[in-house]
Amino acid sequence: MLDDRADIEERADEDYRLDGDLVDAILDAVEASDTEQLSALLEPLHAADIADLLEQIDPADRRAFLALWGREIDGEILTEVDESIREEVIDAMPAEVLAEAVRELDSDDVVDLIEDLEKPQQGAILEALEDADRAAVEQSLTYPEYSAGRLMQREVVTAPEHWTVGETIDYLRTVDWLPDQFYHVILVDPRMHPVGYVTLGKVLASRRDVPMLDIVEDSFRTVFVLQEEGDVAYAFNQYHLISAPVVDEDDRLVGVITIDDAMSVLDEEHEEDILRLAGVSEDSAISDSVLETVRQRLPWLGVNLLTAILASVVIAQFEATIAQVVALAVLMPIVASMGGNAGTQTLTVAVRALATRNLTESNVWRVIRREAVVGAVNGLCFALVMGAVAWAWFGQPVLGVVIGVAMIINLFVAAVSGIAVPLALEKLGADPALASGTFVTTVTDVVGFFAFLGLAGMVLL
Amino acid sequence: MLDDRADIEERADEDYRLDGDLVDAILDAVEASDTEQLSALLEPLHAADIADLLEQIDPADRRAFLALWGREIDGEILTEVDESIREEVIDAMPAEVLAEAVRELDSDDVVDLIEDLEKPQQGAILEALEDADRAAVEQSLTYPEYSAGRLMQREVVTAPEHWTVGETIDYLRTVDWLPDQFYHVILVDPRMHPVGYVTLGKVLASRRDVPMLDIVEDSFRTVFVLQEEGDVAYAFNQYHLISAPVVDEDDRLVGVITIDDAMSVLDEEHEEDILRLAGVSEDSAISDSVLETVRQRLPWLGVNLLTAILASVVIAQFEATIAQVVALAVLMPIVASMGGNAGTQTLTVAVRALATRNLTESNVWRVIRREAVVGAVNGLCFALVMGAVAWAWFGQPVLGVVIGVAMIINLFVAAVSGIAVPLALEKLGADPALASGTFVTTVTDVVGFFAFLGLAGMVLL
Repeated sequence: MLDDRADIEERADEDYRLDGDLVDAILDAVEASDTEQLSALLEPLHAADIADLLEQIDPADRRAFLALWGREIDGEILTEVDESIREEVIDAMPAEVLAEAVRELDSDDVVDLIEDLEKPQQGAILEALEDADRAAVEQSLTYPEYSAGRLMQREVVTAPEHWTVGETIDYLRTVDWLPDQFYHVILVDPRMHPVGYVTLGKVLASRRDVPMLDIVEDSFRTVFVLQEEGDVAYAFNQYHLISAPVVDEDDRLVGVITIDDAMSVLDEEHEEDILRLAGVSEDSAISDSVLETVRQRLPWLGVNLLTAILASVVIAQFEATIAQVVALAVLMPIVASMGGNAGTQTLTVAVRALATRNLTESNVWRVIRREAVVGAVNGLCFALVMGAVAWAWFGQPVLGVVIGVAMIINLFVAAVSGIAVPLALEKLGADPALASGTFVTTVTDVVGFFAFLGLAGMVLL
Repeated sequence: MLDDRADIEERADEDYRLDGDLVDAILDAVEASDTEQLSALLEPLHAADIADLLEQIDPADRRAFLALWGREIDGEILTEVDESIREEVIDAMPAEVLAEAVRELDSDDVVDLIEDLEKPQQGAILEALEDADRAAVEQSLTYPEYSAGRLMQREVVTAPEHWTVGETIDYLRTVDWLPDQFYHVILVDPRMHPVGYVTLGKVLASRRDVPMLDIVEDSFRTVFVLQEEGDVAYAFNQYHLISAPVVDEDDRLVGVITIDDAMSVLDEEHEEDILRLAGVSEDSAISDSVLETVRQRLPWLGVNLLTAILASVVIAQFEATIAQVVALAVLMPIVASMGGNAGTQTLTVAVRALATRNLTESNVWRVIRREAVVGAVNGLCFALVMGAVAWAWFGQPVLGVVIGVAMIINLFVAAVSGIAVPLALEKLGADPALASGTFVTTVTDVVGFFAFLGLAGMVLL
């Protein structure tokens, strides 16, 4: 009974993290050059987990691992490893293993694999493909990066629009190139314009003599080949799509995007948002070296230094005031900190609302108004609290009034800039998450110090 | 030609945002009580877009809209609207419309719909269901919130393991309750233990006499009914699952989770992370009123006030020092700000790495070491820059040395606390994103002020 409960808890807690003991055993096998043991340990693992393992072990271990096991890397593992170590993995694979690994992949995976590689590595992979596949991949590479054209696979299952269920099934039983993942049969007219699609479930559940056109899905959305992949991923999530045909400017079918690809893109977009809000380069990876990490973090810290100096310049204008009332130096960071926090709250809500298309023309003014009022109300609340604290602390009621008024001003400004900055960036065609945190805290620092010290200078001296 | 290009650009720019003109037209129709025009405008919209519309228009417009169009709300719209306005929408629907809307839904959607409703509304919906459906929904509700049991649908397409493709197709053609979305036929033994699954593509592409067991997928994962939904969503993304059978503690099949549900959960988890990092309650919505928004934002601002006061207490220890060298008051926010920024960078990377299971036992020490070294290196870089700036600004080389040393200390501490805080929260079973931003900036504020002013006190006086 107790055993049962422990077992149930363990199963409920499964979180798919790589098991530390397993990793240790694998590294032991690598160190002992015990290929047999290594294969036995890796055999039950999913390609995605092996890729994670490669990313997580340290560089020296990874080199030893790849030297020993490079021949066993397959196409699936290759597509799963992070870009940051992909070149290293490819270099460790013998040419014929690489060729074999690549040939088993769908065209979208090959594109994803090679788009960020150096030319010679790209060439080696393209050469390994059969002519038709190579043409398909090269065609996809002509579309811009991050477009639907790069994301789609070119293996599409279609049927002429006049076919019946029986004809479709008979046809599917004869072809030998069906993609691993497909969920719809797309009906096309003679000029390859998609006219609708039928779920495989409907095909299976219908009698052979039913015309395919009778069982098409009500809602049918195509994706334009030049559309941005982030927008495509949004559409999959918003409209619960499983697959979507991709069409060119003449509305001809050129490929299909499936939900697993859309889910990866959605995940990448989230990563981008959260990292950009924190001022971290979005191509950072857990396997990056110290040098790469420094290079990713320095730029925004540099920008932050400039803005921090700007805030200090504001403070410097009030040196004389501070020299007379040192309590001001003690209290001023509180005003700035509260403004920065309130601004970040609003900013994050706005960035998220823009990403989910919940902040639009129809509600933008109402949301701005709401944030402004919320900022003023919060300002008032904390003005009262902090005013009382300052009074009690320094025994000067007027100091309480000054910090209270500065707090109201700064929290109001924080709210307004927290929503105005991402909206402005979006209007300018930039990513609303990019650097907006730094802009907003610059505003709240400058306004906070200026309001507090300026008011103090007028009232106290 | 020019027209063509404009058209192509427009199609490439499609981002699925609600069109402002359309929203205006809809609101005009509502104001004119023109039901016919309203229906004509809404007819082409997807349920998810109508739900977004309801969330985005202001509360008075929403009431008018619902009064006019409540009869037309269907089950799909109901499942799409955000929890924040769901009760309002349900209240606007006549009882028989609500009953009809609910009857057309799959069991997982009904569960999702009612789990957050008040008892009387829950009862009304349950009563509307047929007996079998009601039993299924009530069964799901016995599982804990945010568990796989709540997420799964109970309509599962199964076949005995010994069937052939032909038998399976014949069976599928006879049943009339097939779910809207299904991607696999799950093979079960006589005791309802799932033994494998076959994609519908394989069923369609194989001859009638092929045994189903011959074409099962290589990788087959079941989900335990009590598993946390966030972990389930992670598994879908990590292993590219399309659907996964859900089993109880005796490994018996009790339901199935499909990728569209997993995708929604993944999206919600991201929202939680990004909002929590900013100290915003994760159940905030764009339709919230001022009062609700104030209530969501106040708690963390309150915590931030306490920590800001703590930092001020540190400063207060050095009042005498500041009184003698006012330049310290000018420069000290720079040290704190750089520390806060560097800490937030590390923190965000750590939170993201924990969410993607990329920070594990196998690499945690290496990552901590890397962050510490990066912190020290960044500290050194900015120590040199800021030291020179301070020297040039105030003409005192020793001031440059003091701020330089304080910068190195604070950026090192920022890096270490940026990774230690989320790891500690995770160890304690808390969400690593929750409030960690406030903790980390408290540390960097306190350490920054203490290091800078303390050093200055020792060196300058």
